[in-house]
Amino acid sequence: MKATGIIVEYNPFHNGHLLHLQEARKQTDEDVVIAVMSGSFLQRGEPALLPKWERAQMAVDAGVDLVVELPFDYATQQAAIFAHGAIEILGSLGVSSIFFGSENGDAKVFSSIAKLVTEESVSFKASIRRFLDDKANSYATAWNSAIRELAPDLTLDLAQPNNILGFHYALAIAEQGKNINIATMSRKSAGYHDQSPAHHSIASATAIRHILLANDWKTAQQYLPDTTLVILQKYRETHSFVTWNDFWPLLRYQLISAPTDQLATIRGVSEGIENRLQQAAIHAATFDDFLAKTTTKRYSTSRIKRTALQILFQQRAHDTASQNYIRLLGMSANGQQYLSQIKKEISLPIVSTASKANPHLIQNDIRAGKLYSLAPSLGDQVLRDFHTTPYRKKP
Amino acid sequence: MKATGIIVEYNPFHNGHLLHLQEARKQTDEDVVIAVMSGSFLQRGEPALLPKWERAQMAVDAGVDLVVELPFDYATQQAAIFAHGAIEILGSLGVSSIFFGSENGDAKVFSSIAKLVTEESVSFKASIRRFLDDKANSYATAWNSAIRELAPDLTLDLAQPNNILGFHYALAIAEQGKNINIATMSRKSAGYHDQSPAHHSIASATAIRHILLANDWKTAQQYLPDTTLVILQKYRETHSFVTWNDFWPLLRYQLISAPTDQLATIRGVSEGIENRLQQAAIHAATFDDFLAKTTTKRYSTSRIKRTALQILFQQRAHDTASQNYIRLLGMSANGQQYLSQIKKEISLPIVSTASKANPHLIQNDIRAGKLYSLAPSLGDQVLRDFHTTPYRKKP
Repeated sequence: MKATGIIVEYNPFHNGHLLHLQEARKQTDEDVVIAVMSGSFLQRGEPALLPKWERAQMAVDAGVDLVVELPFDYATQQAAIFAHGAIEILGSLGVSSIFFGSENGDAKVFSSIAKLVTEESVSFKASIRRFLDDKANSYATAWNSAIRELAPDLTLDLAQPNNILGFHYALAIAEQGKNINIATMSRKSAGYHDQSPAHHSIASATAIRHILLANDWKTAQQYLPDTTLVILQKYRETHSFVTWNDFWPLLRYQLISAPTDQLATIRGVSEGIENRLQQAAIHAATFDDFLAKTTTKRYSTSRIKRTALQILFQQRAHDTASQNYIRLLGMSANGQQYLSQIKKEISLPIVSTASKANPHLIQNDIRAGKLYSLAPSLGDQVLRDFHTTPYRKKP
Repeated sequence: MKATGIIVEYNPFHNGHLLHLQEARKQTDEDVVIAVMSGSFLQRGEPALLPKWERAQMAVDAGVDLVVELPFDYATQQAAIFAHGAIEILGSLGVSSIFFGSENGDAKVFSSIAKLVTEESVSFKASIRRFLDDKANSYATAWNSAIRELAPDLTLDLAQPNNILGFHYALAIAEQGKNINIATMSRKSAGYHDQSPAHHSIASATAIRHILLANDWKTAQQYLPDTTLVILQKYRETHSFVTWNDFWPLLRYQLISAPTDQLATIRGVSEGIENRLQQAAIHAATFDDFLAKTTTKRYSTSRIKRTALQILFQQRAHDTASQNYIRLLGMSANGQQYLSQIKKEISLPIVSTASKANPHLIQNDIRAGKLYSLAPSLGDQVLRDFHTTPYRKKP
């Protein structure tokens, strides 16, 4: 059995994801599709709309064979760290290829640029630093300019969110020396940032979240597979969807009342941004208001949200990252078979149920799960993440 | 002009406090009464029912000449530290005497025991440690036993809350070498812990808070001077009374999601109590529920609440205590006159408005004020404490 890997958030799983999944099978022709999925908190510094357990079930019910969690320490970080963690997991699970959507759509471009950057890593890093010296440049702009300088013939627009992720997947494969093929499909429908549906059956996850938060099920069902709809509707019978609004009072408390020198030790807090965030928290009534007061050209909304999440999570920069590991969230019969076949070759530790795992290994994900569970929208389920066993779909 | 000092919380100012104030004037025969009052948070580890500004006004309107704030670093600590800070302030303000209520009622007993303890401090400390070795002993019990051993002829029951405070006032005066007389009155009416009114016009502050929280104004007015009633009723038109319930979601967040090793660095957290508190927070629905799950013979409710407050406030044990200072909250014409008369002799820094003070000096009280302001009961007034000027009563 051979496997292909996809890297996902499924927030929630929609028709575009289904298309991506089907294309992954078709284009790579592997027997098994493994999804590395973010858990409670996502790369753009946001809580997931609903818990990882419901989202893993959506994935498996829609055809993914194995869903494993990307640990918090990678899932909530900038693209380079995010990609490093995901590729390490997929490599450990023995995938032959990865498959991702990108604005660019040409796998060779990703591989070639990643190879160049790895070979020229010293001059490339110097080049990024030089572009960042211009305070008007964001990280994305600086990376883009450095790549254009390095490879003027290869066109890869890193201002596009899926290109930048794809580039970092390719780079992580090159840096980790993994023998993993790259396949990509062009994302033609529904721009990632687009909030209004652009196609009759496919919309961006952002647009779909807006529709769901507005309780517009009639519109929502147009963009969601039935497998997702069933799970979402059951979930909504007893819970609300989770947003930053659930955590705003807690973030505001941290920003307003924590010692400033303690805030300065948080991961991602630099250049005195803690003072800016503290001031904004005093005068902001809502999280959106807080974002409006803090976002600038240099500090993108995503970067502010990511930093805000680290503050909420109280992750100190000096804490050493824990070892990566493979936490099983859900699997099909096919996925179970693949897992038992390769089990002995997997180098990373495997965690099936958190309560039975090495507490030191998974401590940050335990904390992240507990923090997420404090969302009033969820009701009270502080220990759910600790005791839940992976979802197993019957054949 | 000569002054006497009283040490108060006025949570809120009631008829018993009025009696104490009148007795202070009568028994000491000084021209001026100075009250050192706790600010937003109190010695038993609780938020004040309403802000320091309303409480300072109650005090001045009822006849106190000068109200100064006991900084958070002293106000929320065990009796020895609490007393040290209060006596340092009163000493700096040049009082000739202090006056307090006690269960014992005999000033000479306090002075004599304080003198003995100061002289025998090495053997006394060893004695306390010995009694604390018995894990069944609380701090109060250990102190009590040590004092009985040191001074078998002098009877002072330190299990009584006002005796223990009075003893520490006397001890602080002796240790700081201050020339301050001690006067005390016996507290005959309304046991401090008593929740039901025992006298037709005097009830404990605890009982009165219960009455006010139940919105029973008819009963409340029996125990409160008109000056207090007017201020309370005006306050309640736009705000609710503040309790631990306001802060329970924030405390629970800290306990459940902060890194355990970070909790262990908080002031007052020792003997692995952080694990006990974390476990209780997971299963407790309310702050009272949390207290019920954590209080034991060794860990009194007050000690748990004090520790909980330090966790909420995120005060690290290794932070050096800031210098003591005199923050003016309110004054009568008489108080203003006294202040301008002795101003040049005051050794501690004086703070009139927080926004104009040395930020480093008052940083913990700024933080405490902001934290307190996050109580939903208060509505939004994060910067009130920062900009408010002392209350001045017109002659």
